[in-house]
Amino acid sequence: MATRHGDTLIFSAPPVIAAWAAVGGKKEGEGPLAAGFDQLFPDNRMGENSWETAESDLQQSAAQHCLNKAHLPKEKLQLVLAGDLQAQCTASNYTLRALGAPYAGVYGACSTMAETLGLAACLCSAGLVGHAMALTSSHFCAAEREFRTPLDYGGKRAPTAQWTATAAGACLVRPAGEGIPIRAVTFGRVVDYRVTDINNMGAAMAPAAAQTLLHYLRDTGHAAEDFDAVFTGDLGQVGTTLLYELLQAEGILLRNHQDCGCLLYDAAAQDVKAGGSGCGCSAAVLCAHVLPRLQSGAYRRVLFMATGALMSQTTYLQGESIPGVAHLLELEAPAE
Amino acid sequence: MATRHGDTLIFSAPPVIAAWAAVGGKKEGEGPLAAGFDQLFPDNRMGENSWETAESDLQQSAAQHCLNKAHLPKEKLQLVLAGDLQAQCTASNYTLRALGAPYAGVYGACSTMAETLGLAACLCSAGLVGHAMALTSSHFCAAEREFRTPLDYGGKRAPTAQWTATAAGACLVRPAGEGIPIRAVTFGRVVDYRVTDINNMGAAMAPAAAQTLLHYLRDTGHAAEDFDAVFTGDLGQVGTTLLYELLQAEGILLRNHQDCGCLLYDAAAQDVKAGGSGCGCSAAVLCAHVLPRLQSGAYRRVLFMATGALMSQTTYLQGESIPGVAHLLELEAPAE
Repeated sequence: MATRHGDTLIFSAPPVIAAWAAVGGKKEGEGPLAAGFDQLFPDNRMGENSWETAESDLQQSAAQHCLNKAHLPKEKLQLVLAGDLQAQCTASNYTLRALGAPYAGVYGACSTMAETLGLAACLCSAGLVGHAMALTSSHFCAAEREFRTPLDYGGKRAPTAQWTATAAGACLVRPAGEGIPIRAVTFGRVVDYRVTDINNMGAAMAPAAAQTLLHYLRDTGHAAEDFDAVFTGDLGQVGTTLLYELLQAEGILLRNHQDCGCLLYDAAAQDVKAGGSGCGCSAAVLCAHVLPRLQSGAYRRVLFMATGALMSQTTYLQGESIPGVAHLLELEAPAE
Repeated sequence: MATRHGDTLIFSAPPVIAAWAAVGGKKEGEGPLAAGFDQLFPDNRMGENSWETAESDLQQSAAQHCLNKAHLPKEKLQLVLAGDLQAQCTASNYTLRALGAPYAGVYGACSTMAETLGLAACLCSAGLVGHAMALTSSHFCAAEREFRTPLDYGGKRAPTAQWTATAAGACLVRPAGEGIPIRAVTFGRVVDYRVTDINNMGAAMAPAAAQTLLHYLRDTGHAAEDFDAVFTGDLGQVGTTLLYELLQAEGILLRNHQDCGCLLYDAAAQDVKAGGSGCGCSAAVLCAHVLPRLQSGAYRRVLFMATGALMSQTTYLQGESIPGVAHLLELEAPAE
């Protein structure tokens, strides 16, 4: 079960991430985390007629790798929590048509991996679900035309822009047993610093990341230094700088921070401007990089906080500002 | 807590819907359920510059009415589960910017009211959340251009088309206390009968409704006749006919069925073709019609099953078929 402290739920008997998988596309396979992926696809079209269908294929592939690693047939899944960036979350909807499991669709923009994991942890900790999957994806080509312009338009990329990852991540969550314990979850609140630049998602999301981290630290009495690493995803270089400024104003100096958007690619060599983004970015970094290091004991305790920018192309064109949200998970290495 | 039977969670100590509210637009105010709404707005633009912002205003209004009825300041909300039909769920995102509560965004298309209520019921039953809000909305003008064509295009409406409700519904869920007990929840699986007509949502959703109802009846051993009413939302007239056919093939004759899409409007007088639809349709019928009748004891036990069509305009134009999903809640009158 769990006790609530402010916005944070602390699990007395932590649910676990029993298995996980990450898949990616061509650019992700050329990046520094390539070795951690379960599968890398050289063709970002996945042999499909559309980027949108290709993204659903990626998500299905991540789910299947995760099920394989857990030796769990898909028929045993009791609930899948999934979402993505496509309008009406269609990458997830069509994935669930293929998976056939009970489905709770989620929208958290790039915070989806943390949101789905947080909800799965709650449901598993309460014994309501025995095998829950948290699942998300993004696709560069699908996201560009969803939020900005079609690739064919040949738009120039701004220095503050981030590169939406062509990737998917899947985690199987169980009430107990072997795996990575989820000690706590903080569901974030929407924060809007009136950023209106669709090519600067990091700036839009940084205030939400700062707020959720501050809430978690206040709620638990922990300090950021208590952890081997504090991961955000996906603020990129611009958002990371702003996060540091916001936290410094609160007297917090983050010395152990890493951003998933800065980890997934080699920014200089791969020309991704301010870094990676998209639901698949933090999901893939979690599953290809963070969870394996917790499993091996290289990390003992980490915070994983995924951030989302909550606009659409319509609200952007209408002149609305871009609110952000961030959800946080406290993860630890398995007991020895 | 709860016990799981197949896809159905049965709560031994049922969480309750402690307060609820429905708001609607002009057409809803001219319909047969007008008297049940908490507020009806004669101007569907709500004085805003866009339909999308107006929809968010509607959702905020429903949330505020619900909070007022519960005498709960918004600062006490521990989690809001919300979603809508706009791309990237922006009606909900901007509502949560105003509400400021911890937020888990959800996408379930027109099944959102049942999905958010089902998740809220789970989290409250486990004691993880003390005050959870389930919230959704839809807006005819925003939905038409999101899924079909802008109103200015003047498209002819097909006889099978449904009218997206301009409405919002909000429910406050608590672990126990006064209110309408939620006895059980069944999260649905995605079903696709390969319907490709974007003007026939009822046909796309009916197979999911049939499947979820069959799963619930199998899981619990109940018969449809055990209930005063079985509500679906929002199959409309076409989907309702197909639901009956699908259930008859399984030996089930539904005698106590009502569809939210057929209840919200007077189909003949209001020219809504096959009936109402949209997240706000089943949400408003639940809050303006079903819950008050459970509260008064006019109904003792009902099933509420909201259905969603899981396509987007993009996947429709790409020739994809339209999958459906349906989530079910078993509700009962308060103990005397």
